[in-house]
Amino acid sequence: MTYQAPVRDIMFNIEHLSDWPGVSSLAAYSGVETGDVQAALEGFGRFCSEVIAPLSAQGDATGARFDGEKVVMPGPYLQAYAQYAGMGWQSLPHPEEFGGMGLPRAAGAAATEILNAADMSFGLCPLLTDGAVEALLLTGSGAQKQRYLEPMISGRWSGTMNLTEPQAGSDLGRVRCKAEPGADGAYSISGTKIFITYGAHSLTENIVHLVLARTPGAPAGPKGLSLFIVPKFLVQEDGSLGRRNTVQCVSIEHKLGVRASPTAVLEFQGATGFLVGEENRGLEYMFVMMRAARFSVGVQGVAVSERAYQHALRYAQERVQSRPVDGSSKEAVPILQHPDVRRLLLRMRALVEGGRALAMATAGWLDLAQHAEAETAREAAEMAEFLVPLVKGCCTERSVEVTSMGLQVHGGMGFIEETGVAQFYRDARILPIYEGTTAIQANDLLGRKVLRDGGSTARRFAGMVSAAEAELRKGSAKAQLVADRLGQARRAFEASLAWLLETAPDDPNAAYAGSVPFLMLAGNLAAGWQLGRSVLAAEAKLEQGEDTAFMTQKIATAVFYAQHILVECGTESARVIDGSESLFDAGFEN
Amino acid sequence: MTYQAPVRDIMFNIEHLSDWPGVSSLAAYSGVETGDVQAALEGFGRFCSEVIAPLSAQGDATGARFDGEKVVMPGPYLQAYAQYAGMGWQSLPHPEEFGGMGLPRAAGAAATEILNAADMSFGLCPLLTDGAVEALLLTGSGAQKQRYLEPMISGRWSGTMNLTEPQAGSDLGRVRCKAEPGADGAYSISGTKIFITYGAHSLTENIVHLVLARTPGAPAGPKGLSLFIVPKFLVQEDGSLGRRNTVQCVSIEHKLGVRASPTAVLEFQGATGFLVGEENRGLEYMFVMMRAARFSVGVQGVAVSERAYQHALRYAQERVQSRPVDGSSKEAVPILQHPDVRRLLLRMRALVEGGRALAMATAGWLDLAQHAEAETAREAAEMAEFLVPLVKGCCTERSVEVTSMGLQVHGGMGFIEETGVAQFYRDARILPIYEGTTAIQANDLLGRKVLRDGGSTARRFAGMVSAAEAELRKGSAKAQLVADRLGQARRAFEASLAWLLETAPDDPNAAYAGSVPFLMLAGNLAAGWQLGRSVLAAEAKLEQGEDTAFMTQKIATAVFYAQHILVECGTESARVIDGSESLFDAGFEN
Repeated sequence: MTYQAPVRDIMFNIEHLSDWPGVSSLAAYSGVETGDVQAALEGFGRFCSEVIAPLSAQGDATGARFDGEKVVMPGPYLQAYAQYAGMGWQSLPHPEEFGGMGLPRAAGAAATEILNAADMSFGLCPLLTDGAVEALLLTGSGAQKQRYLEPMISGRWSGTMNLTEPQAGSDLGRVRCKAEPGADGAYSISGTKIFITYGAHSLTENIVHLVLARTPGAPAGPKGLSLFIVPKFLVQEDGSLGRRNTVQCVSIEHKLGVRASPTAVLEFQGATGFLVGEENRGLEYMFVMMRAARFSVGVQGVAVSERAYQHALRYAQERVQSRPVDGSSKEAVPILQHPDVRRLLLRMRALVEGGRALAMATAGWLDLAQHAEAETAREAAEMAEFLVPLVKGCCTERSVEVTSMGLQVHGGMGFIEETGVAQFYRDARILPIYEGTTAIQANDLLGRKVLRDGGSTARRFAGMVSAAEAELRKGSAKAQLVADRLGQARRAFEASLAWLLETAPDDPNAAYAGSVPFLMLAGNLAAGWQLGRSVLAAEAKLEQGEDTAFMTQKIATAVFYAQHILVECGTESARVIDGSESLFDAGFEN
Repeated sequence: MTYQAPVRDIMFNIEHLSDWPGVSSLAAYSGVETGDVQAALEGFGRFCSEVIAPLSAQGDATGARFDGEKVVMPGPYLQAYAQYAGMGWQSLPHPEEFGGMGLPRAAGAAATEILNAADMSFGLCPLLTDGAVEALLLTGSGAQKQRYLEPMISGRWSGTMNLTEPQAGSDLGRVRCKAEPGADGAYSISGTKIFITYGAHSLTENIVHLVLARTPGAPAGPKGLSLFIVPKFLVQEDGSLGRRNTVQCVSIEHKLGVRASPTAVLEFQGATGFLVGEENRGLEYMFVMMRAARFSVGVQGVAVSERAYQHALRYAQERVQSRPVDGSSKEAVPILQHPDVRRLLLRMRALVEGGRALAMATAGWLDLAQHAEAETAREAAEMAEFLVPLVKGCCTERSVEVTSMGLQVHGGMGFIEETGVAQFYRDARILPIYEGTTAIQANDLLGRKVLRDGGSTARRFAGMVSAAEAELRKGSAKAQLVADRLGQARRAFEASLAWLLETAPDDPNAAYAGSVPFLMLAGNLAAGWQLGRSVLAAEAKLEQGEDTAFMTQKIATAVFYAQHILVECGTESARVIDGSESLFDAGFEN
């Protein structure tokens, strides 16, 4: 079973949803044409189909292994990674100044999707490197950028995020790892970090750890954390590798999924570290990396969902079982003809396309936020900050659902590991957990992105949805149907928003009790909105007679989304508004 | 982490929801007191906590193994099974005539829940034996009952269901296994069966396979199947074991979950088989076994959900992380105090208690159907037939959700296999698949239980819900709130029902496109109804001042269920009524 990168749909999203006119006119991307993006993604899609996707089952079966001293990767990963780096794919979304291809974020997100659909375990190494590159680009010194970025962007070195400690998971304020300043301006880093993705491996010649630690006398809590570069091998003046730093892997985890991706416990024993930016601003800098990583994890949700969808669709086309309920055949038919199998597949497709549309639109705002002029950038940043927790929270929660449906389509065969779809179900399950659980995303959304500005960004978001509804109402009957369901969902969002703004000041527990339902409601609405925009674009193309089959399907998927998925918004709103009292009435003594 | 059987809640369900007055006055159960049931369940609960639950993680890690000739079970299973059988637990729900304890079905369901909560892999062996006993009790000849029942009910022999073949999964009409009659009245059975749970193992001295096969000249399709007893060891006149029959295990599956439960491919090579009942009525007989097995699989869903809930609650009470959002403490608190963790746990609890209530009420109808007088039995049978697909379909779908939430409560630790909760998530995933997928349950509900009688049983069900609403409206404010949400859910059910009855004759595809949403709606409503009845019972107890803490919690859980879960019924109804057109508009060409 092979994977085909959905480049046609991805390009539709980039062209019509990611604000391509705005993004491609930014100085940072001057001269980039959609044709360049398409060519890059097609090439990358071929590479991932041919080289990476065939590794995923074997990587899962072998797993990464710790031999007591070092991590042993599944053999074929080594060659595949060398090809990946050698062909320059790591550089796709990064600036030309440091050797990157300089493509916009939407293209980068597309590449992340394609790679992670092919193999999430493999994809995590480049994903972490991307995040570390992003953090260094924005917060590193000139010398640090010169030293570390080119080898990372070329894929020769990888990057990691070292946040979690046994007592400090969601609550990073409890980090205890120590950083003692030395005479030479470097620091001596000591402590134990856990759950470090690709914290130790043999795919690259060096690993650049970004580590949160506490300097002597730093304030307690999250405001006393500083960020350090701790390379596995220290880097000499000429850029060559010097002595081995005193950071050791002491074990890796035995996990439900992404088994070929080593999750390390790292012991820092007076390791040499280099301060990034200023002391005590580490968490702030790490949030830069986390925002990028959270967005990418949401894209991983889309990725594994797409992979599960392709697998399930193929099986449903090939597996013959039972006569059709409408009596149209006396013979058994491919199960794709049975209504509930169709429903499962279409729900999977709608959630995949909705998630992709949301991610691609968010990528556009992220680019504007970083590269546009003052006011445009500020407004884009607000919208991007609002949308990132939706991408992370909702696309990952949905990936658990979609991979489960994909398994269900396979019936008993789905439960057999050799079929391969159980792996997607296992792999996906980490996504709503790492880089901040869904509850953490929901707290971020409610606390920082909604309550802090008195709901103004949330209202602006609702206003944009409303504008799309107005456009849709001018379109076909199907467009009007989507407008109708979008309107219902938006009003459910507005009602929840009003209740939260009113309730939170006096009763934060009641407000936060609804934070995850509110997140799911907002994410559902945001994805539905982007699919609504897709309908507008597709109907315009149909009028021009372009790509009729694709555009017709795009509209059909959006209608299904409106009728089967947007309707969940009312339920979520009821949970937000009516659901908190019973939560605190109930005890857990029995 | 130990498991505690929730005997208090189970007894509440038996006493107040399973029609205990009606069931205990049946001749079949004359003299059985609730005290007897409670004593048995407490004893069994202790045994399962102490002996079975500690095996589950090890059984999962070791798995059942095929050595090329035979299945090797995890070592500790042998001794545990010997204790289980030796203490007579297999006999709990079976008639005294054949050595059983003769307890009602609700007690049997409770025992199934407790055992499967302790270890689903282990519990599958007794579960299949129970199903085979049930089939032989109802369809076996007197001589067959004399020969097979006592050793099965004592747990010395186990039973299996041999239905599936590679080309015949959901569609049993395609079964090809052959049965040639011999001179001695026995048959020679040949063919390959797959996915045979406990088809080969070393826990019992004999295995009684019930096998669907086709006699020469039998009609094609499902009406040409006959049912045969094919024992692993032939049984001699005196009941002792004779020669080894020619049925061989050729391999077992490598599965996502229930890894210690061997799923065998069995090769029948002219094996000696004995016809059960009449030729060509095999599928009809097998449905007896399937109804029992489907009900029990629904109970497995409740079981693994309860186990996941207990694990998650314990973790949430012990894991300290982050300050509370209401600012009530400057220190980090147990995560149970964080609103979304509470929400997850209460949702888990509400789904567990709702599922258990639905199963226990159904057990009462199953008993009346089998043992009551004519008209009562007929009406009870209709209701039981209507409810069994809800128990199977909904409690198993919910178990996937509940075990996923349990994993989520653990954060990153949940993804680490040694924590133990990933196993529940993996184990649960088979439940919506085996014994008929959710879509098969939904087809059964819609086709056989709703359309066939023109909706009259479904309307009777809605009428009973409505009667409970009227009672609740006389109660406390909380009872009235439950009545209100129940009423909304019931009206959503009635609207869907009316649409389905109207649509199905002319457009079966459209009707069946809504079959799973309708199943989930009906199951949600049925569980909510039983929790509504629980509120009535609990408020009566509170007036008498009895067991105040338990009854208060029971009501709180029902209110949460009403506000967070019953509200999903409206969404499901929208999917049924509005959702089919877009399903058939969309193609899968792209």
